[in-house]
Amino acid sequence: MKSDLQCQIDFITEIDALKSVQRKTYLMDGSRFETSAEHSWAVATLALLLAEHAPEGTKMQRVIEMLLIHDVVEVDAGDALLYDEAANQAKAEREQQAATRLFGLLPEAQAERFERLWQEFEAQQTPEALFANALDRFIPLLHNLHTKGRAWRQLGVRYEQVIDKNQKIGKASPELWQYVKERIDLLFAGRPVLPSRFD
Amino acid sequence: MKSDLQCQIDFITEIDALKSVQRKTYLMDGSRFETSAEHSWAVATLALLLAEHAPEGTKMQRVIEMLLIHDVVEVDAGDALLYDEAANQAKAEREQQAATRLFGLLPEAQAERFERLWQEFEAQQTPEALFANALDRFIPLLHNLHTKGRAWRQLGVRYEQVIDKNQKIGKASPELWQYVKERIDLLFAGRPVLPSRFD
Repeated sequence: MKSDLQCQIDFITEIDALKSVQRKTYLMDGSRFETSAEHSWAVATLALLLAEHAPEGTKMQRVIEMLLIHDVVEVDAGDALLYDEAANQAKAEREQQAATRLFGLLPEAQAERFERLWQEFEAQQTPEALFANALDRFIPLLHNLHTKGRAWRQLGVRYEQVIDKNQKIGKASPELWQYVKERIDLLFAGRPVLPSRFD
Repeated sequence: MKSDLQCQIDFITEIDALKSVQRKTYLMDGSRFETSAEHSWAVATLALLLAEHAPEGTKMQRVIEMLLIHDVVEVDAGDALLYDEAANQAKAEREQQAATRLFGLLPEAQAERFERLWQEFEAQQTPEALFANALDRFIPLLHNLHTKGRAWRQLGVRYEQVIDKNQKIGKASPELWQYVKERIDLLFAGRPVLPSRFD
Protein backbone atom coordinates (compact mmCIF):
# COMPACT_ATOMS: atom_id res chain seq x y z
CA MET A 1 0.00 0.00 0.00
CA LYS A 2 1.22 3.45 -0.91
CA SER A 3 1.21 6.07 1.85
CA ASP A 4 -1.03 9.13 1.46
CA LEU A 5 2.10 11.24 1.16
CA GLN A 6 3.40 9.09 -1.72
CA CYS A 7 0.03 9.44 -3.51
CA GLN A 8 0.21 13.22 -3.10
CA ILE A 9 3.78 13.31 -4.40
CA ASP A 10 2.78 11.13 -7.38
CA PHE A 11 0.04 13.66 -8.16
CA ILE A 12 2.30 16.73 -7.98
CA THR A 13 4.87 14.89 -10.11
CA GLU A 14 2.24 14.03 -12.72
CA ILE A 15 0.73 17.51 -12.97
CA ASP A 16 4.21 18.99 -13.46
CA ALA A 17 3.39 18.34 -17.14
CA LEU A 18 1.22 21.48 -17.02
CA LYS A 19 4.53 23.35 -17.43
CA SER A 20 4.74 21.82 -20.92
CA VAL A 21 1.22 22.80 -22.06
CA GLN A 22 1.42 25.92 -24.18
CA ARG A 23 -1.47 28.40 -24.27
CA LYS A 24 -2.24 30.87 -27.06
CA THR A 25 -1.52 33.85 -24.84
CA TYR A 26 1.67 35.88 -25.22
CA LEU A 27 3.67 36.88 -22.17
CA MET A 28 3.21 40.58 -21.42
CA ASP A 29 6.63 41.20 -23.03
CA GLY A 30 5.52 39.33 -26.17
CA SER A 31 8.55 37.00 -26.12
CA ARG A 32 6.65 33.68 -26.24
CA PHE A 33 3.35 32.01 -25.34
CA GLU A 34 2.82 31.28 -21.64
CA THR A 35 2.43 27.76 -20.22
CA SER A 36 -0.71 26.61 -18.43
CA ALA A 37 1.28 26.35 -15.18
CA GLU A 38 2.36 29.99 -15.51
CA HIS A 39 -1.20 31.05 -16.27
CA SER A 40 -2.48 29.14 -13.23
CA TRP A 41 -0.05 31.03 -10.99
CA ALA A 42 -0.95 34.40 -12.50
CA VAL A 43 -4.71 33.94 -12.29
CA ALA A 44 -4.59 32.62 -8.69
CA THR A 45 -2.45 35.63 -7.77
CA LEU A 46 -4.91 37.91 -9.55
CA ALA A 47 -7.70 36.47 -7.38
CA LEU A 48 -5.65 37.41 -4.32
CA LEU A 49 -5.32 40.96 -5.71
CA LEU A 50 -8.89 41.50 -6.87
CA ALA A 51 -10.88 40.11 -3.93
CA GLU A 52 -12.58 43.49 -3.45
CA HIS A 53 -14.07 43.25 -6.97
CA ALA A 54 -15.82 39.94 -6.23
CA PRO A 55 -19.52 39.91 -5.24
CA GLU A 56 -19.93 40.28 -1.49
CA GLY A 57 -19.71 36.99 0.35
CA THR A 58 -17.57 35.25 -2.28
CA LYS A 59 -15.20 32.88 -0.47
CA MET A 60 -11.86 33.91 -1.93
CA GLN A 61 -9.96 30.94 -0.47
CA ARG A 62 -12.16 28.62 -2.54
CA VAL A 63 -11.70 30.80 -5.65
CA ILE A 64 -7.91 30.53 -5.28
CA GLU A 65 -8.04 26.77 -4.69
CA MET A 66 -10.18 26.33 -7.83
CA LEU A 67 -7.82 28.43 -9.92
CA LEU A 68 -4.77 26.48 -8.73
CA ILE A 69 -6.25 23.23 -10.05
CA HIS A 70 -8.65 24.41 -12.80
CA ASP A 71 -6.30 23.50 -15.66
CA VAL A 72 -4.69 20.26 -14.44
CA VAL A 73 -6.93 18.23 -16.78
CA GLU A 74 -4.92 19.77 -19.64
CA VAL A 75 -2.10 17.39 -18.72
CA ASP A 76 -4.13 14.76 -20.64
CA ALA A 77 -6.58 16.86 -22.64
CA GLY A 78 -4.44 19.82 -23.81
CA ASP A 79 -5.48 23.47 -24.00
CA ALA A 80 -8.25 24.59 -26.36
CA LEU A 81 -8.48 28.23 -27.44
CA LEU A 82 -11.64 29.88 -26.08
CA TYR A 83 -12.69 30.97 -29.61
CA ASP A 84 -12.27 27.52 -31.17
CA GLU A 85 -15.78 26.12 -30.64
CA ALA A 86 -15.12 22.81 -32.40
CA ALA A 87 -12.12 22.11 -30.15
CA ASN A 88 -14.09 23.11 -27.06
CA GLN A 89 -17.05 20.87 -27.86
CA ALA A 90 -14.74 17.89 -28.33
CA LYS A 91 -12.86 18.38 -25.12
CA ALA A 92 -15.51 17.96 -22.39
CA GLU A 93 -15.37 14.17 -22.31
CA ARG A 94 -11.56 14.09 -22.55
CA GLU A 95 -11.38 16.50 -19.64
CA GLN A 96 -13.69 14.44 -17.45
CA GLN A 97 -11.59 11.34 -18.15
CA ALA A 98 -8.46 13.34 -17.32
CA ALA A 99 -10.00 14.53 -14.05
CA THR A 100 -10.88 10.96 -13.04
CA ARG A 101 -7.38 9.70 -13.83
CA LEU A 102 -5.41 12.58 -12.33
CA PHE A 103 -7.39 13.27 -9.14
CA GLY A 104 -7.64 9.47 -8.79
CA LEU A 105 -3.92 9.45 -7.99
CA LEU A 106 -4.72 11.17 -4.66
CA PRO A 107 -5.89 9.52 -1.41
CA GLU A 108 -9.59 8.73 -1.80
CA ALA A 109 -11.19 11.52 0.26
CA GLN A 110 -8.85 14.10 -1.25
CA ALA A 111 -9.49 12.80 -4.77
CA GLU A 112 -13.22 13.32 -4.28
CA ARG A 113 -12.74 16.79 -2.81
CA PHE A 114 -10.50 17.94 -5.67
CA GLU A 115 -12.70 16.46 -8.39
CA ARG A 116 -15.72 18.23 -6.86
CA LEU A 117 -13.77 21.47 -6.77
CA TRP A 118 -12.87 21.10 -10.46
CA GLN A 119 -16.46 20.20 -11.39
CA GLU A 120 -17.73 23.23 -9.47
CA PHE A 121 -15.37 25.45 -11.50
CA GLU A 122 -16.57 23.88 -14.75
CA ALA A 123 -20.28 24.12 -13.86
CA GLN A 124 -20.04 27.91 -13.27
CA GLN A 125 -22.97 28.00 -10.85
CA THR A 126 -21.65 29.05 -7.44
CA PRO A 127 -20.42 32.62 -6.76
CA GLU A 128 -16.89 31.21 -6.32
CA ALA A 129 -16.97 29.38 -9.68
CA LEU A 130 -18.44 32.41 -11.46
CA PHE A 131 -15.74 34.73 -10.14
CA ALA A 132 -12.95 32.19 -10.82
CA ASN A 133 -14.18 31.76 -14.40
CA ALA A 134 -14.43 35.54 -14.83
CA LEU A 135 -10.78 35.95 -13.80
CA ASP A 136 -9.76 33.05 -16.07
CA ARG A 137 -11.27 35.02 -19.00
CA PHE A 138 -10.18 38.44 -17.76
CA ILE A 139 -6.44 37.77 -17.58
CA PRO A 140 -5.89 36.74 -21.25
CA LEU A 141 -7.76 39.93 -22.20
CA LEU A 142 -5.17 41.93 -20.24
CA HIS A 143 -2.39 40.13 -22.16
CA ASN A 144 -4.02 40.86 -25.50
CA LEU A 145 -4.66 44.50 -24.60
CA HIS A 146 -1.04 44.89 -23.46
CA THR A 147 0.33 43.35 -26.69
CA LYS A 148 -2.09 45.30 -28.95
CA GLY A 149 -4.13 42.20 -29.75
CA ARG A 150 -1.16 40.31 -31.20
CA ALA A 151 -2.44 36.77 -30.49
CA TRP A 152 -5.94 37.70 -31.72
CA ARG A 153 -4.56 39.04 -34.98
CA GLN A 154 -2.33 36.01 -35.52
CA LEU A 155 -5.12 33.56 -34.69
CA GLY A 156 -7.82 35.44 -36.57
CA VAL A 157 -10.15 36.38 -33.73
CA ARG A 158 -12.73 39.09 -34.44
CA TYR A 159 -14.14 41.80 -32.16
CA GLU A 160 -17.58 40.14 -31.98
CA GLN A 161 -16.00 36.86 -30.91
CA VAL A 162 -14.00 38.54 -28.15
CA ILE A 163 -17.14 40.25 -26.85
CA ASP A 164 -19.36 37.18 -27.24
CA LYS A 165 -17.03 34.83 -25.38
CA ASN A 166 -16.06 37.22 -22.59
CA GLN A 167 -19.11 39.30 -21.75
CA LYS A 168 -20.11 36.88 -18.98
CA ILE A 169 -17.24 38.44 -16.98
CA GLY A 170 -19.82 41.19 -16.34
CA LYS A 171 -22.13 38.80 -14.51
CA ALA A 172 -19.47 38.13 -11.88
CA SER A 173 -17.99 41.62 -11.87
CA PRO A 174 -19.48 44.56 -13.82
CA GLU A 175 -16.45 46.66 -12.90
CA LEU A 176 -13.93 44.23 -14.41
CA TRP A 177 -16.00 43.84 -17.59
CA GLN A 178 -16.38 47.60 -18.02
CA TYR A 179 -12.61 48.02 -17.68
CA VAL A 180 -11.77 45.56 -20.45
CA LYS A 181 -14.79 46.28 -22.69
CA GLU A 182 -13.83 49.95 -23.07
CA ARG A 183 -10.29 49.00 -24.00
CA ILE A 184 -11.31 46.21 -26.40
CA ASP A 185 -13.56 48.72 -28.19
CA LEU A 186 -10.65 51.14 -28.54
CA LEU A 187 -8.26 48.41 -29.74
CA PHE A 188 -10.58 47.28 -32.54
CA ALA A 189 -11.85 50.77 -33.47
CA GLY A 190 -11.04 51.59 -37.09
CA ARG A 191 -9.41 48.22 -37.79
CA PRO A 192 -10.56 46.42 -40.94
CA VAL A 193 -12.82 43.43 -40.28
CA LEU A 194 -10.94 40.33 -41.37
CA PRO A 195 -12.33 36.83 -41.91
CA SER A 196 -11.83 34.61 -38.87
CA ARG A 197 -10.74 30.99 -38.93
CA PHE A 198 -13.39 30.40 -36.27
CA ASP A 199 -16.34 31.77 -38.35
CA MET B 1 -5.28 59.65 -10.12
CA LYS B 2 -5.10 55.99 -11.08
CA SER B 3 -7.99 53.81 -9.93
CA ASP B 4 -7.25 50.98 -7.51
CA LEU B 5 -8.09 48.51 -10.29
CA GLN B 6 -5.55 50.14 -12.62
CA CYS B 7 -2.88 49.88 -9.89
CA GLN B 8 -3.70 46.18 -9.44
CA ILE B 9 -3.53 45.57 -13.19
CA ASP B 10 -0.20 47.42 -13.38
CA PHE B 11 1.11 45.08 -10.65
CA ILE B 12 -0.05 41.86 -12.34
CA THR B 13 1.40 43.15 -15.64
CA GLU B 14 4.74 43.90 -13.99
CA ILE B 15 5.10 40.57 -12.17
CA ASP B 16 4.37 38.71 -15.41
CA ALA B 17 8.17 38.94 -15.78
CA LEU B 18 8.38 36.07 -13.26
CA LYS B 19 7.60 33.84 -16.27
CA SER B 20 11.00 34.86 -17.66
CA VAL B 21 13.03 34.09 -14.53
CA GLN B 22 14.69 30.71 -14.89
CA ARG B 23 15.38 28.55 -11.84
CA LYS B 24 18.02 25.83 -11.54
CA THR B 25 15.40 23.09 -11.22
CA TYR B 26 14.61 20.73 -14.08
CA LEU B 27 11.01 19.96 -14.97
CA MET B 28 10.08 16.46 -13.83
CA ASP B 29 10.55 15.29 -17.45
CA GLY B 30 14.03 16.84 -17.55
CA SER B 31 13.30 18.83 -20.73
CA ARG B 32 14.32 22.27 -19.40
CA PHE B 33 14.60 24.38 -16.24
CA GLU B 34 11.33 25.63 -14.78
CA THR B 35 10.45 29.33 -14.47
CA SER B 36 9.79 31.02 -11.14
CA ALA B 37 6.14 31.51 -12.14
CA GLU B 38 5.76 27.76 -12.76
CA HIS B 39 7.46 26.99 -9.45
CA SER B 40 5.14 29.40 -7.63
CA TRP B 41 2.09 27.60 -9.03
CA ALA B 42 3.46 24.16 -8.17
CA VAL B 43 4.44 25.01 -4.60
CA ALA B 44 1.12 26.78 -3.87
CA THR B 45 -0.70 23.72 -5.23
CA LEU B 46 1.51 21.49 -3.08
CA ALA B 47 0.42 23.47 -0.03
CA LEU B 48 -3.19 22.75 -0.97
CA LEU B 49 -2.33 19.04 -1.20
CA LEU B 50 -0.20 18.70 1.94
CA ALA B 51 -2.26 20.67 4.46
CA GLU B 52 -2.54 17.58 6.66
CA HIS B 53 1.27 17.48 7.04
CA ALA B 54 1.41 21.00 8.48
CA PRO B 55 1.57 21.53 12.26
CA GLU B 56 -1.91 21.71 13.76
CA GLY B 57 -3.39 25.19 13.64
CA THR B 58 -1.35 26.34 10.63
CA LYS B 59 -3.54 28.69 8.58
CA MET B 60 -3.24 27.17 5.13
CA GLN B 61 -4.91 30.08 3.35
CA ARG B 62 -2.07 32.31 4.54
CA VAL B 63 0.53 29.69 3.51
CA ILE B 64 -0.92 29.63 -0.02
CA GLU B 65 -1.06 33.44 -0.23
CA MET B 66 2.59 33.65 0.85
CA LEU B 67 3.65 31.08 -1.71
CA LEU B 68 1.83 32.87 -4.54
CA ILE B 69 3.83 36.05 -3.94
CA HIS B 70 7.05 34.73 -2.29
CA ASP B 71 9.14 35.01 -5.46
CA VAL B 72 7.84 38.22 -7.07
CA VAL B 73 10.92 40.12 -5.88
CA GLU B 74 12.89 38.01 -8.39
CA VAL B 75 11.42 40.21 -11.14
CA ASP B 76 14.09 42.73 -10.12
CA ALA B 77 16.53 40.65 -8.08
CA GLY B 78 16.69 37.36 -10.04
CA ASP B 79 16.82 33.84 -8.62
CA ALA B 80 19.78 32.70 -6.51
CA LEU B 81 20.52 28.99 -6.12
CA LEU B 82 20.02 27.86 -2.50
CA TYR B 83 23.55 26.42 -2.38
CA ASP B 84 25.27 29.55 -3.68
CA GLU B 85 25.97 31.36 -0.40
CA ALA B 86 27.75 34.31 -1.96
CA ALA B 87 24.79 35.02 -4.26
CA ASN B 88 22.35 34.64 -1.38
CA GLN B 89 24.23 37.03 0.90
CA ALA B 90 24.27 39.66 -1.82
CA LYS B 91 20.59 39.43 -2.63
CA ALA B 92 18.85 40.47 0.62
CA GLU B 93 19.10 44.21 0.00
CA ARG B 94 18.20 43.90 -3.69
CA GLU B 95 15.13 41.88 -2.72
CA GLN B 96 13.95 44.46 -0.17
CA GLN B 97 14.30 47.19 -2.79
CA ALA B 98 12.37 45.03 -5.24
CA ALA B 99 9.60 44.44 -2.69
CA THR B 100 9.28 48.17 -2.05
CA ARG B 101 9.12 48.98 -5.77
CA LEU B 102 6.80 46.13 -6.82
CA PHE B 103 4.32 46.08 -3.94
CA GLY B 104 4.44 49.88 -4.10
CA LEU B 105 2.55 49.66 -7.41
CA LEU B 106 -0.52 48.49 -5.48
CA PRO B 107 -3.10 50.66 -3.67
CA GLU B 108 -1.55 51.76 -0.37
CA ALA B 109 -3.30 49.44 2.11
CA GLN B 110 -2.82 46.45 -0.18
CA ALA B 111 0.83 47.34 -0.79
CA GLU B 112 1.43 47.27 2.98
CA ARG B 113 -0.45 43.99 3.40
CA PHE B 114 1.48 42.25 0.61
CA GLU B 115 4.86 43.57 1.74
CA ARG B 116 4.15 42.34 5.28
CA LEU B 117 3.14 38.94 3.90
CA TRP B 118 6.42 38.73 1.95
CA GLN B 119 8.47 39.84 4.96
CA GLU B 120 6.71 37.25 7.11
CA PHE B 121 7.72 34.55 4.60
CA GLU B 122 11.32 35.78 4.59
CA ALA B 123 11.58 36.00 8.40
CA GLN B 124 10.55 32.35 8.86
CA GLN B 125 9.13 32.87 12.34
CA THR B 126 5.38 32.17 12.21
CA PRO B 127 4.01 28.61 11.71
CA GLU B 128 2.69 29.71 8.30
CA ALA B 129 6.07 31.08 7.17
CA LEU B 130 7.90 28.00 8.47
CA PHE B 131 5.62 25.62 6.58
CA ALA B 132 5.68 27.74 3.41
CA ASN B 133 9.48 27.82 3.51
CA ALA B 134 9.59 24.06 4.12
CA LEU B 135 7.48 23.43 0.99
CA ASP B 136 9.63 25.88 -1.00
CA ARG B 137 12.65 23.70 -0.14
CA PHE B 138 10.82 20.38 -0.37
CA ILE B 139 9.60 20.69 -3.95
CA PRO B 140 13.01 21.16 -5.67
CA LEU B 141 14.16 18.08 -3.74
CA LEU B 142 11.32 16.12 -5.37
CA HIS B 143 12.49 17.36 -8.79
CA ASN B 144 16.08 16.36 -8.10
CA LEU B 145 15.07 12.95 -6.75
CA HIS B 146 12.86 12.35 -9.81
CA THR B 147 15.66 13.31 -12.22
CA LYS B 148 18.34 11.33 -10.33
CA GLY B 149 20.02 14.47 -9.01
CA ARG B 150 20.69 15.85 -12.50
CA ALA B 151 20.75 19.54 -11.56
CA TRP B 152 22.88 18.82 -8.46
CA ARG B 153 25.44 16.94 -10.54
CA GLN B 154 25.57 19.62 -13.20
CA LEU B 155 25.85 22.43 -10.65
CA GLY B 156 28.28 20.59 -8.37
CA VAL B 157 26.17 20.27 -5.23
CA ARG B 158 27.37 17.75 -2.61
CA TYR B 159 25.34 15.52 -0.27
CA GLU B 160 26.37 17.53 2.81
CA GLN B 161 25.21 20.75 1.19
CA VAL B 162 21.83 19.27 0.31
CA ILE B 163 21.35 18.07 3.90
CA ASP B 164 22.69 21.26 5.48
CA LYS B 165 20.45 23.59 3.46
CA ASN B 166 17.28 21.53 3.67
CA GLN B 167 17.18 19.91 7.08
CA LYS B 168 15.11 22.75 8.49
CA ILE B 169 12.19 21.20 6.57
CA GLY B 170 12.08 18.81 9.55
CA LYS B 171 11.30 21.67 11.96
CA ALA B 172 8.05 22.40 10.09
CA SER B 173 7.25 18.81 9.15
CA PRO B 174 9.25 15.80 10.42
CA GLU B 175 7.27 13.54 8.07
CA LEU B 176 8.19 15.50 4.92
CA TRP B 177 11.85 15.65 5.94
CA GLN B 178 12.01 11.93 6.68
CA TYR B 179 10.54 11.18 3.24
CA VAL B 180 13.16 13.17 1.33
CA LYS B 181 16.10 12.46 3.64
CA GLU B 182 15.82 8.68 3.13
CA ARG B 183 15.74 9.17 -0.65
CA ILE B 184 18.60 11.69 -0.73
CA ASP B 185 20.71 9.20 1.25
CA LEU B 186 19.94 6.48 -1.31
CA LEU B 187 20.61 8.77 -4.27
CA PHE B 188 24.08 9.74 -3.03
CA ALA B 189 25.01 6.28 -1.61
CA GLY B 190 28.10 4.93 -3.31
CA ARG B 191 28.63 8.00 -5.49
CA PRO B 192 32.14 9.46 -5.53
CA VAL B 193 32.52 12.71 -3.59
CA LEU B 194 33.33 15.43 -6.11
CA PRO B 195 34.58 18.93 -5.40
CA SER B 196 31.75 21.48 -5.32
CA ARG B 197 31.85 24.94 -6.85
CA PHE B 198 30.16 26.15 -3.67
CA ASP B 199 32.87 24.80 -1.29
